[in-house]
Amino acid sequence: MSKIEAKYTNITGGFWDRYRKLNREKIIYAIKKVNEETGRRGALDIEKIKSGEITPHKYWDSDLAKWIEAASYILKYHKDEILEKEIDDMVDLFCKNQDESGYFNSYFQHFETDMQFKKRRSHELYCLGHMIEAAVAYYEVSGKDKFLNMVKKYADLVYKVFYVEKSAAFKAPGHEEIEQALYKLYKLTGDKKYLELSLYFIDHRASEATEADYMWYGGVNLKYGQDHLPVREQRTAEGHSVRAMYLYMGVADIAKETGDKELLEVCDSIFKDIYNKKMYITGGIGAYNHVEGFGTPYFLPNRTAYCETCAAISLVMFCQRMGNIYPKSIYHDVIERVLYNGFLTGVSLDGERFFYQNVLEWDSEACYSNPTMDDGRTPQTPVPERQKEFSVLCCPANLSRLMGRLEEYIYSANEEAVFVNQYIPSNFEKELFGKKIAVEMTTSFPKNGEIKITAKNLKGKKLAIRIPQWCKNYTISEKGELQDGFYYISVDGDEITVTANFEMKPSLVFCNPKVRENAGKAAVMMGPVVYCAEGIDNEENIFSQLIDKDFSYEVEFSDYYNVNVLTVNGKKIKETETPFSNSVEYEKTKIKLIPYFGFANRELTDMRIFFNII
Amino acid sequence: MSKIEAKYTNITGGFWDRYRKLNREKIIYAIKKVNEETGRRGALDIEKIKSGEITPHKYWDSDLAKWIEAASYILKYHKDEILEKEIDDMVDLFCKNQDESGYFNSYFQHFETDMQFKKRRSHELYCLGHMIEAAVAYYEVSGKDKFLNMVKKYADLVYKVFYVEKSAAFKAPGHEEIEQALYKLYKLTGDKKYLELSLYFIDHRASEATEADYMWYGGVNLKYGQDHLPVREQRTAEGHSVRAMYLYMGVADIAKETGDKELLEVCDSIFKDIYNKKMYITGGIGAYNHVEGFGTPYFLPNRTAYCETCAAISLVMFCQRMGNIYPKSIYHDVIERVLYNGFLTGVSLDGERFFYQNVLEWDSEACYSNPTMDDGRTPQTPVPERQKEFSVLCCPANLSRLMGRLEEYIYSANEEAVFVNQYIPSNFEKELFGKKIAVEMTTSFPKNGEIKITAKNLKGKKLAIRIPQWCKNYTISEKGELQDGFYYISVDGDEITVTANFEMKPSLVFCNPKVRENAGKAAVMMGPVVYCAEGIDNEENIFSQLIDKDFSYEVEFSDYYNVNVLTVNGKKIKETETPFSNSVEYEKTKIKLIPYFGFANRELTDMRIFFNII
Repeated sequence: MSKIEAKYTNITGGFWDRYRKLNREKIIYAIKKVNEETGRRGALDIEKIKSGEITPHKYWDSDLAKWIEAASYILKYHKDEILEKEIDDMVDLFCKNQDESGYFNSYFQHFETDMQFKKRRSHELYCLGHMIEAAVAYYEVSGKDKFLNMVKKYADLVYKVFYVEKSAAFKAPGHEEIEQALYKLYKLTGDKKYLELSLYFIDHRASEATEADYMWYGGVNLKYGQDHLPVREQRTAEGHSVRAMYLYMGVADIAKETGDKELLEVCDSIFKDIYNKKMYITGGIGAYNHVEGFGTPYFLPNRTAYCETCAAISLVMFCQRMGNIYPKSIYHDVIERVLYNGFLTGVSLDGERFFYQNVLEWDSEACYSNPTMDDGRTPQTPVPERQKEFSVLCCPANLSRLMGRLEEYIYSANEEAVFVNQYIPSNFEKELFGKKIAVEMTTSFPKNGEIKITAKNLKGKKLAIRIPQWCKNYTISEKGELQDGFYYISVDGDEITVTANFEMKPSLVFCNPKVRENAGKAAVMMGPVVYCAEGIDNEENIFSQLIDKDFSYEVEFSDYYNVNVLTVNGKKIKETETPFSNSVEYEKTKIKLIPYFGFANRELTDMRIFFNII
Repeated sequence: MSKIEAKYTNITGGFWDRYRKLNREKIIYAIKKVNEETGRRGALDIEKIKSGEITPHKYWDSDLAKWIEAASYILKYHKDEILEKEIDDMVDLFCKNQDESGYFNSYFQHFETDMQFKKRRSHELYCLGHMIEAAVAYYEVSGKDKFLNMVKKYADLVYKVFYVEKSAAFKAPGHEEIEQALYKLYKLTGDKKYLELSLYFIDHRASEATEADYMWYGGVNLKYGQDHLPVREQRTAEGHSVRAMYLYMGVADIAKETGDKELLEVCDSIFKDIYNKKMYITGGIGAYNHVEGFGTPYFLPNRTAYCETCAAISLVMFCQRMGNIYPKSIYHDVIERVLYNGFLTGVSLDGERFFYQNVLEWDSEACYSNPTMDDGRTPQTPVPERQKEFSVLCCPANLSRLMGRLEEYIYSANEEAVFVNQYIPSNFEKELFGKKIAVEMTTSFPKNGEIKITAKNLKGKKLAIRIPQWCKNYTISEKGELQDGFYYISVDGDEITVTANFEMKPSLVFCNPKVRENAGKAAVMMGPVVYCAEGIDNEENIFSQLIDKDFSYEVEFSDYYNVNVLTVNGKKIKETETPFSNSVEYEKTKIKLIPYFGFANRELTDMRIFFNII
């Protein structure tokens, strides 16, 4: 299995096109502005550091690199001279500031200079990872190799210091990211030393971490940084969710590349653990605030959910790799779940504000006067209101780079078939099976489940269409066979047109009853979209409303949200004057639901996804 | 209205007698031991302070004073030479260490000596308040006035410094307590300056506090210490719950004493605000962890409930004062609710361990690996397991002193009637209406609701029996009239015997639906006792269980808990393998319930009070 790369694929409209426009017009510029305002961009000017005007944080380089990567993807589908010039200017500064040795870190080149490669938690290799990803992205889009050569030089130094001379003070970085970045560099350059180095970092994880390394996380144990066991022995998703996913992305890359069965088993187990026990209905991961990480199995609280936007994004990236290993729809189902929910909620509808933490329920009345975290707020997200800026700025550029790279989530192929993984209006042309294969898809998904796919030159091969997990009934115009969630259609002619209709209607979704917070409650989904109620749409206290178990609803398309909005029948508990009573009365009500990704775009108001059922 | 004081009343058996025994045999000694082990007791030895062996905290004197008060009450009903000698020894040291001026504080006499009465948040007057209460208590029980004279001398100094010379650096103390203590001292001595000083502190509250005073509480506003408005303008319960209740105890005392209508309105409003909007079903108060205080209206989360034991105790004390102003049963209903639930849960069944925080729900599986406060734990109560000791040791001695003083919650009287407020086997003899009134009550309450009361010499007056709020049907052997929750029986003869049967059966109790956390859920109560399910008694995951709305149950008396335990019919959600599903199946189950006060006495296990109803 391998993906059909973004460079061969074009998104031609539909739901995500609005976001691609938002990405190039608003999001990328909103992040650029914050990078400037916070001093990140200025830190590339050494004089400003020397004069004391700016003191960069150890991880700031990563934010700039991620912006370059995100901007690069935009250039693929939209010419923008401002963006291109800004990238070139930044690349010039990255290169100009690089040490003769190849070393680069805006902090350690000016502060604690004797501590380069001495502090495991210093984010140096994390920054390099993002620089590599940015350089590869920009090279692929523009053909310019200046940044690429710069990061290769740095990566070569890292190879020498860590792998050959072993003169660094640690063996594996505190914050993962470089593992899969090195794999990208290897794939682009063909230079095996990057692959070796990546595997070295993976296999030396947990070999040296001490409890003392983690005391600053409030006493949490070595799981925080996936240091509790050698990676090859890890079977459950633990600790900081983004770090974990970045690690397993690299593990999956290498497992696929080398056929390493041990590493593959790690990935399989981690995926199952997340999928069955540690993933929210929104595709969000990370239940614990304090470690920004995975909780114990089935611990998925709504109000105190952490669900960092970056964690959702990294889960998508991990699942993509799994989907490139196995022809199974489940990975793409998860990607779809994340994209339309836990990922998309990370940005406001106007593209200018971002969530770092994404809660699944909000009681506004109780929280505005409550200045601490009793109710799920963190320093990053003090109220359920998206922010223009946070001190840790990882999420916005991460969101933008995924938004600009959605093309590569749509199609994949193996020796026998072309796979349609996501339903997005698009086309691709690529040499496959020795022929020039062309596929075109049109759809209004997720407004409805009608899909039309035309494939050329696929004779003798198969077209495999993912049957979405949420879909109970579907019709497909061609006969086919279902396997592992894909519907395989054998192609006889030079051109085939397939229409599919995935029945898409609102339905109740229950969590596994072991999810203690939601046992007995249900959410409403329609297709891949998770719905929520906001106080602003519902006159009554939404927390005293229940949804009828004889589920009925009305559906209406909303231009504002670009998906359907729903009205479902329910009951509300009649108000009482007394604090306690021996019975309650219910009266009929209608509950208006909007897509979860669109919550908190109008005013600060209550929000809930899960309702009691009556 | 006035209470029939503890000195005239005897508890003669029943439910609370077991706790009085536990109090004198275990609790008071457990606290004594911790006072010794933590250095509190040793701090009365000046040499240990001077040598640096012990550095007392500014509030340690209050812990010792509360222990003296608690021990004094025990001496009323149980001769104990060890306790009496220990009190005398401590009193000797308190007196010996008192400055010539009258000043006493184990910290400020040795550290920051120039800061006496200079730091508003230093707890000096809080400590004096508890010393006064202890001295009054010991004098009343023993007739010994050494401690009383010592605290009078100190109170006189405070009067001079704060009221006459106004030379202290602040006008009203940061932590309330002294207000009602001064009232006690006034009532005992008849010296009006103590009343004046108490009113002065009340009326100068909020006159000088600045935001800066409160920055150390994480930016919370002036409500923390009831400094947001002049007391006379306060109408809602805000901020630190114990501080608030201690304040309003004093306000109620003075309102009753002086007939001050403004202060009375403050108390009325505060009570209503708590009763209607800020009190848990257990009688616990304080929804916010971070300020140990009141949340916004109807914010009463279960898992993150703070519900400090001291807050429950101080609510009892406040309600007692309100009950001494108005002949209304509601105050005694609240006292009963607190005593059998939010108060009693503060101590283990073996009397050796204590809760500081009292949560209303616990998900053990999720929490043991979660080292911070996501799930409601605080530094005082890291897991739902009672502790022998905490750094802030206010609750255990507070619990003990209320346990030893329950007599005074049973009866009260006004010009027209003797009131029976609590159902506890007891008797009293006291001169009232110019006659020697004797009342005797027998009951197995709260095992059942059968009460027998005999009153002598009450001819021409009334016997007023509280109809418990939880009771829907009752029979009383004599005719009477119901008013404000009291059943008034006019007494014709020299002796009257009244039997009452308050029907007591398990029932579902719903919160006001504005309590967002519990809308649609119900708890089970039987009489005044709130029930909970513990995992250890219920094989299945208790969080996937629901109680049948056609409520049915079995009742069995438990010697272990000394009340009934219940089995109620319900449903459990069938386990599934998938993380999400479009329907759930239920199967019948029986849910075993124990009294909430008895939870966490066996092993660390899940606990819940509120269940979804099906």
